[in-house]
Amino acid sequence: MIPRYSRPEMVAIWSPETKFRIWYEIEAHACDAQAKLGVIPKENAAAVWKARDVEFDIARIDEIERETKHDVIAFLTHLAEIVGADEARFVHQGMTSSDVLDTTFNVQLVRAADILIADMDALLEALKRRAYEHKDTVRIGRSHGIHAEPTTMGLTFARFYAEMDRNRARLVTAREEVATGAISGAVGTFANIDPFVEEYVTEKLGLVPEPISTQVIPRDRHAAFFAALGVVASSIENLATEIRHMQRTEVLEAEEFFSKGQKGSSAMPHKRNPVLTENLTGLARLVRMAVIPAMENVALWHERDISHSSVERNIGPDATVTLDFALARLTQVVDKLVVYPDNMLANMNKFRGLVMSQRVLLALTQAGVSREDAYKLVQRNAMKVWEEGADFKEELLGDGDVRAALSEAEIEEKFDLGYHTKHVDTIFARVFGD
Amino acid sequence: MIPRYSRPEMVAIWSPETKFRIWYEIEAHACDAQAKLGVIPKENAAAVWKARDVEFDIARIDEIERETKHDVIAFLTHLAEIVGADEARFVHQGMTSSDVLDTTFNVQLVRAADILIADMDALLEALKRRAYEHKDTVRIGRSHGIHAEPTTMGLTFARFYAEMDRNRARLVTAREEVATGAISGAVGTFANIDPFVEEYVTEKLGLVPEPISTQVIPRDRHAAFFAALGVVASSIENLATEIRHMQRTEVLEAEEFFSKGQKGSSAMPHKRNPVLTENLTGLARLVRMAVIPAMENVALWHERDISHSSVERNIGPDATVTLDFALARLTQVVDKLVVYPDNMLANMNKFRGLVMSQRVLLALTQAGVSREDAYKLVQRNAMKVWEEGADFKEELLGDGDVRAALSEAEIEEKFDLGYHTKHVDTIFARVFGD
Amino acid sequence: MIPRYSRPEMVAIWSPETKFRIWYEIEAHACDAQAKLGVIPKENAAAVWKARDVEFDIARIDEIERETKHDVIAFLTHLAEIVGADEARFVHQGMTSSDVLDTTFNVQLVRAADILIADMDALLEALKRRAYEHKDTVRIGRSHGIHAEPTTMGLTFARFYAEMDRNRARLVTAREEVATGAISGAVGTFANIDPFVEEYVTEKLGLVPEPISTQVIPRDRHAAFFAALGVVASSIENLATEIRHMQRTEVLEAEEFFSKGQKGSSAMPHKRNPVLTENLTGLARLVRMAVIPAMENVALWHERDISHSSVERNIGPDATVTLDFALARLTQVVDKLVVYPDNMLANMNKFRGLVMSQRVLLALTQAGVSREDAYKLVQRNAMKVWEEGADFKEELLGDGDVRAALSEAEIEEKFDLGYHTKHVDTIFARVFGD
Amino acid sequence: MIPRYSRPEMVAIWSPETKFRIWYEIEAHACDAQAKLGVIPKENAAAVWKARDVEFDIARIDEIERETKHDVIAFLTHLAEIVGADEARFVHQGMTSSDVLDTTFNVQLVRAADILIADMDALLEALKRRAYEHKDTVRIGRSHGIHAEPTTMGLTFARFYAEMDRNRARLVTAREEVATGAISGAVGTFANIDPFVEEYVTEKLGLVPEPISTQVIPRDRHAAFFAALGVVASSIENLATEIRHMQRTEVLEAEEFFSKGQKGSSAMPHKRNPVLTENLTGLARLVRMAVIPAMENVALWHERDISHSSVERNIGPDATVTLDFALARLTQVVDKLVVYPDNMLANMNKFRGLVMSQRVLLALTQAGVSREDAYKLVQRNAMKVWEEGADFKEELLGDGDVRAALSEAEIEEKFDLGYHTKHVDTIFARVFGD
Repeated sequence: MIPRYSRPEMVAIWSPETKFRIWYEIEAHACDAQAKLGVIPKENAAAVWKARDVEFDIARIDEIERETKHDVIAFLTHLAEIVGADEARFVHQGMTSSDVLDTTFNVQLVRAADILIADMDALLEALKRRAYEHKDTVRIGRSHGIHAEPTTMGLTFARFYAEMDRNRARLVTAREEVATGAISGAVGTFANIDPFVEEYVTEKLGLVPEPISTQVIPRDRHAAFFAALGVVASSIENLATEIRHMQRTEVLEAEEFFSKGQKGSSAMPHKRNPVLTENLTGLARLVRMAVIPAMENVALWHERDISHSSVERNIGPDATVTLDFALARLTQVVDKLVVYPDNMLANMNKFRGLVMSQRVLLALTQAGVSREDAYKLVQRNAMKVWEEGADFKEELLGDGDVRAALSEAEIEEKFDLGYHTKHVDTIFARVFGD
Repeated sequence: MIPRYSRPEMVAIWSPETKFRIWYEIEAHACDAQAKLGVIPKENAAAVWKARDVEFDIARIDEIERETKHDVIAFLTHLAEIVGADEARFVHQGMTSSDVLDTTFNVQLVRAADILIADMDALLEALKRRAYEHKDTVRIGRSHGIHAEPTTMGLTFARFYAEMDRNRARLVTAREEVATGAISGAVGTFANIDPFVEEYVTEKLGLVPEPISTQVIPRDRHAAFFAALGVVASSIENLATEIRHMQRTEVLEAEEFFSKGQKGSSAMPHKRNPVLTENLTGLARLVRMAVIPAMENVALWHERDISHSSVERNIGPDATVTLDFALARLTQVVDKLVVYPDNMLANMNKFRGLVMSQRVLLALTQAGVSREDAYKLVQRNAMKVWEEGADFKEELLGDGDVRAALSEAEIEEKFDLGYHTKHVDTIFARVFGD
Repeated sequence: MIPRYSRPEMVAIWSPETKFRIWYEIEAHACDAQAKLGVIPKENAAAVWKARDVEFDIARIDEIERETKHDVIAFLTHLAEIVGADEARFVHQGMTSSDVLDTTFNVQLVRAADILIADMDALLEALKRRAYEHKDTVRIGRSHGIHAEPTTMGLTFARFYAEMDRNRARLVTAREEVATGAISGAVGTFANIDPFVEEYVTEKLGLVPEPISTQVIPRDRHAAFFAALGVVASSIENLATEIRHMQRTEVLEAEEFFSKGQKGSSAMPHKRNPVLTENLTGLARLVRMAVIPAMENVALWHERDISHSSVERNIGPDATVTLDFALARLTQVVDKLVVYPDNMLANMNKFRGLVMSQRVLLALTQAGVSREDAYKLVQRNAMKVWEEGADFKEELLGDGDVRAALSEAEIEEKFDLGYHTKHVDTIFARVFGD
Repeated sequence: MIPRYSRPEMVAIWSPETKFRIWYEIEAHACDAQAKLGVIPKENAAAVWKARDVEFDIARIDEIERETKHDVIAFLTHLAEIVGADEARFVHQGMTSSDVLDTTFNVQLVRAADILIADMDALLEALKRRAYEHKDTVRIGRSHGIHAEPTTMGLTFARFYAEMDRNRARLVTAREEVATGAISGAVGTFANIDPFVEEYVTEKLGLVPEPISTQVIPRDRHAAFFAALGVVASSIENLATEIRHMQRTEVLEAEEFFSKGQKGSSAMPHKRNPVLTENLTGLARLVRMAVIPAMENVALWHERDISHSSVERNIGPDATVTLDFALARLTQVVDKLVVYPDNMLANMNKFRGLVMSQRVLLALTQAGVSREDAYKLVQRNAMKVWEEGADFKEELLGDGDVRAALSEAEIEEKFDLGYHTKHVDTIFARVFGD
């Protein structure tokens, strides 16, 4: 986790304070459940809630951990210092550390997912707004980086909206994947604790019971969670790449917002570099690098080993904090992107009329020319535009073989931009549903 | 794709024959749709179906491709040779190669997913059968490879059932992710083709229209697809690792089925090696290695570039063929796994009674001993078992401090195995829902 | 391995024929060594060479393997059929299958490395030739896709030469990593075979003895090998990306060679797409995806398990065949790249003179203007060029504050291109050493 | 970077203090070089050294950066505050930010490599000591987790020594890969700065000049660096896996050192879990996850983009800090590993004599029995041991067919352990060279 690529709300989920607070809630709710079952006295369960508004002394917990080399025991010892050793003596009864640790990790991931989903909603809103704003702003569509046929900037925004909307659904699924808790004991048999405790505690925490755990919650869930984050990150890279291309000097169809005080370069004052989207490209790699370790974490030995833990201490915070930051940054980039419609038109006309060659090809075929011949007719005129800077329409009008098949009016009609944008409303209706 | 790790049904999905057949169906249905729209003559659409039962000459198509360096044109040329050049002249009208290629790739992935889901059903069935068979077969649960508390072999099978059942759901979601088709033209604007054609063709192929495509179907879908396969593969590694551990000489709680004629080693005839599950461990890595390239494929330049294509020519067949083979092999391993209940009991009793220490600890606490003191009491007796081979129960019975808290009967009761298995039915009901 | 991305020489290394031939050589040399030691009769060792020029019957070997389920035994059985059962009875004595398999795999990797190094030499030659050809062809250097300062196309080729030259060194190191063989028996103790046999056979095969093996040659060697291939692939992506950028419509500073018969697109005949370099971008991902599985292969259980084997059956051929193809394709692209010096000049002048702003900034500072003030002076004139299409030099000449610091001649001098190319020879001498 | 998996010396390399100190040294040495060239006044160069012993005010630098949004300008501004605005006015002249940033990053990586190499030396020393200590401690070698033939614990340590010694060489190579610096200006042409400055500064910093840079040092170097770290990490996982296997309850051939105050589990006091090596398994994944992003960083756009930067801000510190910690932890584990020779013998004899079957097989062959027949003879006796717990030697002595080929003395001789350890000295000489 790099401070400059972090936002406080997400960082807070991974703080020691938050972690110990969730531990506490699990222990306290578990005591309540045990008391309801008659396993422990009601007064002892009630006493645990004395710590409800007490701030835990993290330095003290650390101190105990240095001695015991066990984090949950350290916390329980500190909790007993607050609640009273005697009153606290039923806390954690029948539970194992992993019951607390694994359930807590999932609570954190669920909260992280909630933030990511909200981030995504903001991004979707920005994309939708910009899509409608530029619904009819014509620009050239490109395949292989080469001009193809006209499209609109609105369609560009709309396709990223659709992609991010799919990512939203993936985040919702990912959240469900990890919204489970387990309080099932040392190897998951509930030997020392009734399944009711798990049901009670998970419900209080907004989770569902893990149907079958061992000592740990199975890690295929977390693999699926981080894989979803990796897909989202890859889509961020996709949109960032589009913007980087639009901003390059020769294209200049859009620019990231450039604040007044900002210096683009220490040496070249005219440069406005797409540094935010380049940064997002790198951040996408950082989120994505969590995917394979999360998958390697699935195969634990027998009922559990702890090889996954150090991995999760890293990727839990890092992947969620980085993705949160990236989504927020991307939203800002989209929101404030400076779009240059004039440059879009100028670029489209760089090779005069050539982008209409597909239409001409089609028209020739429809006029009865064989596909092979039509291809050759178009190609020979297109090459003059490409190599000599000729105007494609003029060449066609002057080509006897073409004119044998198409009238002047028919040729003129092929260069009408409206032809390319006639289904934009249809596509928008598909994407935005309205 | 390695022949020895392949099964014919999945391999067939990726054959040139299948590919051209799907291409053909797309083109033929598209002609029907165009005829319905009145764009092309009905007779020409009908004529295309003349090739319905004709086997395409792949060598001929390859020959044309070597000349034109374009696979779709090569196919269309060959199709015209069958249908007749004149009748075929409206085939592919208004379409672009990617309309065919991308829709075909998704049809193949959907069919592959169907096989994988069926594979998973077979694995689930085997796991369920073995789970009920060994519901009450007691074995020691292990954390960190160290004996913890008793569990049952049935619970081991049941937890993998639950994990694979989640994987089944992920495969279903993955199938949905890619069950779209696009016939939207050079940059996805439908400039040259009515959206009706896309709707018509995708419905015929069992797909839904891609709401917004560019020239290609967006690759976040495929990233999500291969990520799901990576999670499934990681679960295969998980189960394979469990079996490898069970088969090692010192544990020997289970063995892969060993056919009569088989030689385990050229030099050591007594060895029965868990080669199938070791192989599955490697196959899991092979499936998983598709995940990152699939994610790197998402960020295409503008409306498309073709960098994804070579990647997909590899991972499309390889990941699905390998996963299909792995699921089938794993099903066979589970189905025929030789389980040794006697060895399970012998292993559990290796450190005489020590696995019951958790229960004793709990009993001492409940009898009023402080957690810290109870821990020390258990520890000092446990160490005698560990270091001197003593019997844990005997030591406890002879420890005055322990006996001050617990009676002989209470101590005896702590060594009852039924205590650990009392919730097995509850867990089975959660997992199998019956 | 995809046929269309394969070349026969590299494919042949991985054929069954080659594999069995290497197996044979290992066994035959081992017999010679055993005979020299007096362990087996000289006549029996000599008899094995009867198969020297015999083609092995692979179908027959496969048939035996289907029965024995053991590939080495199948081969030895077939070899005995050729040599004679009695004469062959000392073949493989004291050896274990892995002695043959692992040594063979390394022989194949060494041969593959030799081809890759030769491929790299060809690429280096092409890069060097093009570098000298375009040593003085001025083009604009870009950071962040934005014009920075002038450079030359020769420097572009030269930097890729330097990068590929480093990659050559990495391939040489990678070759050394795997140029070992082991004939050390079931767990590497030489219990059943004298270390002399290993020394003798490895020398015959151009390898060195693995200092300490278990049953297998340690897999950190192979991880390092495939990691090196991954770095080379990433450099291929780097060069491919440069060319893709150069070919995009708005830049058009270079194009991949376009053969006469080739059709760029079925629908847009004017399009010349950089499909080779896009393809190389994807191939780079394919090579790179071998890296993590190769690293996951390192941690085998105890003296060996066979989890690495299925991985290597895939990545061994696939990564080397793909990289060989990619290097050859890239060499062809570089060799025939069509460079457009005129377009390079036109692009550089798109924002009239602005790329010289760095020089002006420096001149102002050297003339006594504070860095902050100089920055502002340059910025205000640059913005006029950027926003209004003014000519930078004209603006500076007309700016009183600038002229207070710099004379007309001094300003004129800042726009001399020779200023930027004056160290090209120095850099070439560093890179090419001549 | 996770504090609990960090050591201060490596962390310090990545502190803002260290970073700014290196920046300062680059700038100050560059001024000296410029003064030697006569480009700037000697007094101004000398004045910069006034800051030599001044601690930079990081809060102040951050404050300036928040305004200028440019880190190098912020630093230079602060430096001017110390040195004096007028005297500092030639600082950074002709340089670009990347000259400072990239050279600094490489200095940090070189220093990190130095620590890692020292870590490795400590690990090698521990491995060598333990290898000699247990040179003759017999244990069973295992393939596939199944008993194979005897080996010694010394050979186990020795093979990890050899593997880590190769890793040491890889770290040395990795250090060389990144031991370059660049001061070559905006696009690497030295237009504004003489190559002498680069030569002078890099020599002062213990680097060599990058032969050809653009604005950045090429990232194939860093990809190779992190790939080497990934290989080292994989070897750590390899050794960690061996120890985890040795410590599992049924094997118990070794245990991680267990300090007196340590609690292995909150609930099961008898458990001594191999938590350090499990942790190392996870840490290996964390180091390894840097490899792919580092490779994805290679393909920058044209002369540079900044996508690599956020990746390196993470993996630079994280991978080196984690690997440093992991090497140190592993050294401690090896150093203090508790080895149980008695358990090794007990395990070896679990299946009475069966591990000698390979020798018997060989003896039968040498006695003239055909390979196929010998195999069957051994197999039928081995199965009795396996299935009925018989003693292998006794069975052989009682098998008429075996006795027809081998005398009692010959059979007895096959069960001599010395047979398996006779080449240990040879192997040690190969590994340790003495």
